[in-house]
Amino acid sequence: MSYSQHYERSFVRTFFTSPTAVEGKDDSAAMLRRAAQLRGMEAPDVWVPDNEDATAPSMRDEGAENIIDVVSEHGADVPGEIHPRVVWHRDSPETRFQGFQHMLEIADPDRGALEHLDGFVIPEVGDIDDWKKADEFLTIVEREHGLEERRLSMSVIVESGQAELALADLRDEIGKPTNNLERLFLLVDGEVDYTKDMRAITSTGGLPPWPELRHNTSRAASANGLIAVDGPYDDIRDVDGYHERMTDNRMKGMLGIWSLTPGQVIEANESPLPPATGQWLLDVGDRNVELVDTGGRYACEGDDLELTTIGEGTYEVDTGDGVRKLDADELHDTLVELTEYVPSLSDIVDSMEQFEAAKEAGEGAIAMERSATLEIGDVTVSITSDRMWDEATYQAAKTPIDLFQDVYEHRPDQRETLQERYGESVVERAMNVG
Amino acid sequence: MSYSQHYERSFVRTFFTSPTAVEGKDDSAAMLRRAAQLRGMEAPDVWVPDNEDATAPSMRDEGAENIIDVVSEHGADVPGEIHPRVVWHRDSPETRFQGFQHMLEIADPDRGALEHLDGFVIPEVGDIDDWKKADEFLTIVEREHGLEERRLSMSVIVESGQAELALADLRDEIGKPTNNLERLFLLVDGEVDYTKDMRAITSTGGLPPWPELRHNTSRAASANGLIAVDGPYDDIRDVDGYHERMTDNRMKGMLGIWSLTPGQVIEANESPLPPATGQWLLDVGDRNVELVDTGGRYACEGDDLELTTIGEGTYEVDTGDGVRKLDADELHDTLVELTEYVPSLSDIVDSMEQFEAAKEAGEGAIAMERSATLEIGDVTVSITSDRMWDEATYQAAKTPIDLFQDVYEHRPDQRETLQERYGESVVERAMNVG
Amino acid sequence: MSYSQHYERSFVRTFFTSPTAVEGKDDSAAMLRRAAQLRGMEAPDVWVPDNEDATAPSMRDEGAENIIDVVSEHGADVPGEIHPRVVWHRDSPETRFQGFQHMLEIADPDRGALEHLDGFVIPEVGDIDDWKKADEFLTIVEREHGLEERRLSMSVIVESGQAELALADLRDEIGKPTNNLERLFLLVDGEVDYTKDMRAITSTGGLPPWPELRHNTSRAASANGLIAVDGPYDDIRDVDGYHERMTDNRMKGMLGIWSLTPGQVIEANESPLPPATGQWLLDVGDRNVELVDTGGRYACEGDDLELTTIGEGTYEVDTGDGVRKLDADELHDTLVELTEYVPSLSDIVDSMEQFEAAKEAGEGAIAMERSATLEIGDVTVSITSDRMWDEATYQAAKTPIDLFQDVYEHRPDQRETLQERYGESVVERAMNVG
Repeated sequence: MSYSQHYERSFVRTFFTSPTAVEGKDDSAAMLRRAAQLRGMEAPDVWVPDNEDATAPSMRDEGAENIIDVVSEHGADVPGEIHPRVVWHRDSPETRFQGFQHMLEIADPDRGALEHLDGFVIPEVGDIDDWKKADEFLTIVEREHGLEERRLSMSVIVESGQAELALADLRDEIGKPTNNLERLFLLVDGEVDYTKDMRAITSTGGLPPWPELRHNTSRAASANGLIAVDGPYDDIRDVDGYHERMTDNRMKGMLGIWSLTPGQVIEANESPLPPATGQWLLDVGDRNVELVDTGGRYACEGDDLELTTIGEGTYEVDTGDGVRKLDADELHDTLVELTEYVPSLSDIVDSMEQFEAAKEAGEGAIAMERSATLEIGDVTVSITSDRMWDEATYQAAKTPIDLFQDVYEHRPDQRETLQERYGESVVERAMNVG
Repeated sequence: MSYSQHYERSFVRTFFTSPTAVEGKDDSAAMLRRAAQLRGMEAPDVWVPDNEDATAPSMRDEGAENIIDVVSEHGADVPGEIHPRVVWHRDSPETRFQGFQHMLEIADPDRGALEHLDGFVIPEVGDIDDWKKADEFLTIVEREHGLEERRLSMSVIVESGQAELALADLRDEIGKPTNNLERLFLLVDGEVDYTKDMRAITSTGGLPPWPELRHNTSRAASANGLIAVDGPYDDIRDVDGYHERMTDNRMKGMLGIWSLTPGQVIEANESPLPPATGQWLLDVGDRNVELVDTGGRYACEGDDLELTTIGEGTYEVDTGDGVRKLDADELHDTLVELTEYVPSLSDIVDSMEQFEAAKEAGEGAIAMERSATLEIGDVTVSITSDRMWDEATYQAAKTPIDLFQDVYEHRPDQRETLQERYGESVVERAMNVG
Repeated sequence: MSYSQHYERSFVRTFFTSPTAVEGKDDSAAMLRRAAQLRGMEAPDVWVPDNEDATAPSMRDEGAENIIDVVSEHGADVPGEIHPRVVWHRDSPETRFQGFQHMLEIADPDRGALEHLDGFVIPEVGDIDDWKKADEFLTIVEREHGLEERRLSMSVIVESGQAELALADLRDEIGKPTNNLERLFLLVDGEVDYTKDMRAITSTGGLPPWPELRHNTSRAASANGLIAVDGPYDDIRDVDGYHERMTDNRMKGMLGIWSLTPGQVIEANESPLPPATGQWLLDVGDRNVELVDTGGRYACEGDDLELTTIGEGTYEVDTGDGVRKLDADELHDTLVELTEYVPSLSDIVDSMEQFEAAKEAGEGAIAMERSATLEIGDVTVSITSDRMWDEATYQAAKTPIDLFQDVYEHRPDQRETLQERYGESVVERAMNVG
């Protein structure tokens, strides 16, 4: 199933929410207006005027009006997609009705916002029959306003055990003639409310990591051609923690994340892109030490790995697990095993081009070699590692390139930054490979 | 879905099993009799006279009689609920019939145990159709004895891959007119038999941690308004290990655990309650160091974090990842990032009251501040951290208070201990908040 | 459900793939021919002539012919089962048709391979309806060639989110009158393609660990009487890493793994068998230190645990978490808690025999004791630990013995190695216990 079947974007890195109406300000729509004017790395792939949790209940009718005003005025220039969040709750018919009314208003073509609007975000969904209720309201909105069926996409926030279970039912229900669930776009985790719904407790009040929820969300996205997005990371000042969470998410196939501030948007837009320069790592004990490029050689600074020459071609190495004596060959093999390489965008393009050439020449699998000269303590060693690439390896390695191409194509406002970061020729080759 | 829809208790901390008949004793019911007379923190929320694995097969008919005798005599005074476990196996019709017969006897109103009996525990269930067989027997028992439908609850032990899969089917089956699965109460994991059923092997013979099983059990409880309970921790002397397991379970929303001894009951009754005094932690490397309260200041003893003044407003800090130089502002931010606070019951009540007041004043989100003066090495630093609280944060923080209120209300025999632990005024405020 | 209901083997340790046709060689079937002649620990439990990813697309018709030739000639002497992998893809009808044609040819009784053939491996399956398509083709192959229904088993490679979801549907679909899914044999994970399908990214290009996928595969095997096998470990030189992965898999009930080389086959055939001699471990910080047997005493070499006598019956111990003073009893209890024992095959047989004797004497649970004299620093301590064994413990402990018996029975070519490793009397007792 193609990820771009229903929507332009195959990848969404950033999901940025803005309060729709703030009380006691001259202009209650000020935050919305400011968010609509973000550009470049500060602008999200998906912008979410949030008429639910970020906005006080008493301000939500005004919030719906503000969405209409701001999207009508600025929507044409917003670089990402626009998906307002309306109110919804699996346990509350009146909340659902309120959400329906707001969607009906916001999507009214006579009000001017519709043409810039991509879809709606539905929070607090329950099991799959509850998802269908929201889908049905969207179908009615479309008919009422004379829109094409499925003109409006629907994204859901998974923040209950019921909704997590629905993720596994989705593939059986999508495509049935009595619903329009093909309109689904994003599956977004909402860990704060999920934690409440699961009645979990942590001693400090912090959120549990919920690895199974994120796996199940990513799997449902994969099985149904949708896009998985992680929930908010509310410790806004902890930039390292935000990056660790995104790295962990990417290993689960969840490439997008909620952003609460323009600063988080920048981090989350840039994080999934391959680095501009490659990096050798040394795996010492339970952490990875970055080797420092000293003009073509890679040095291990600090004392994480102790390596000494104790005689002609004899070495003593201490990796923290005890001291071992090694000869030159053993040393080479040990270092090959301890080192890892983080390829740059240019490295990935190189490998893909090499494999494509080999495939054209009739080869099914080739060994990709990588060499480096390491300096550790008083010892200089040249190492060479290789890895077999076949069609499957090639396909799996292609994901960051697919992401890069999707960003470059759909976010012209970020092209300059990408060209500065990688250089024009690498960008051009990255756009032509695959 | 309300957790107290069908049953009085919304939380179950402890599930304590007792053999129903021990051979070669003067009184084969002695252990049962002793367990029935436990009170206070030694008494479990759910007491399980165990006519299955804890009792030899040849003693189980006598065991059923012992349950009737002991529950008739002592049941009125047992502070928790009473749920005998009968025999059952998804692969054995004769075992299922034996379980049915024992339930029929034990629940006979003329025998005197019924009025103190809350339900039955069914072990070794298979897929959802097997759960329905047990439910049907309970329906027949109820009709046969002239009881109201669903008078008897049913709890199941999840100890097979089939039963784990059934957890995801439950919400589609519960409420169908041909079953009474709404009688379900506890979902209890049974890791020993589960390990056998999954054919898992560990080198030492210890049990695997099965994180996915516990997640799936907790999720099914959440989605169906039930209560999740973890299986036995059989290394009885390892109190630290038992607490670590319970902490991990709470992060999954699984607040109850099996207890094999009155000592484990005490630990498991107390573990999920918030502490009486708050605690600052310092996150150093891969562990949390508790700071020591030295009369209003919090000191870091030992050498986990090295901090030295190296000049006017310049500091050197070593967190184990290498030495860094920091100015006063950087030091403050670093320490804010490294410290965490474990709130006491009183702290949680404070925060909830603050948020409730703010909400009444029309605010949707407020910053909760917390300050402390830390003493590390020769340096004294005052830090202030804040965290945004909105409705969702408030709701998620409320779980330990809900638990506390449930315990206080339903376990009068534990009130004195709670008052001694927290002080009367904190207990009173905790009962009134939320 | 019995694991040996449909097939001879209840356990599969090794799944070894060989390219069916390599271009540019004198004999394109050379690798296939060599693999067919592996014996003993180098020979896999399941041998997979791989007409999919290991073979170039242009060579696959020749590959199918090579399978027929080599299996006809050598199949009778291959010690394991033979399950060729054919092409298949959930998204490509022409690939599915090609796979069907190859199966029709290879299973033609007139061609001579069939009598040595156990089944086929189907890669890249999608949801359960896609599995049924492959099953249906096998039913047609069987009818076309006049074979008994379900004569050919079917194993699938789980390498998409859709297929992972199908694992949970299997038990509802297996046994329906319009399919023959009872022919299922192995559920094999394929992490390279799965990573692509999930669109996961790691910085180094290595595979994510996918713990949930492996759990779900193992659970489906358990619930449906099938056998779970992990995917390829492509860092062939990293023997330690391969063993760590297998240890982790065994804790999930996944006892088999893909092998890419005869060297990996040896490791994977031996790894799940219990060790020939027991081993005491000391759990220090985050790792396990093996104690060294010094003639009946077990010594802790190195400085992982520091223990000193500081007076008459007073000791100082440093486990890395800080120094504590202990008296003799506390020292004993601390060491009991820190030590673990890895039982040998002989130890497991001993314990099972002891429990069987106790059960015959009417006991339901007995304490298994284990004693040792430890030498740490200048201190010699004798410790005794015990563990309660009941029927469930016995059943769970039995898995490695069931595996051993299955191997000994079905792999006569490995008996000599087993006898050398364990000694004849231990092997004989292991074959008679349980």
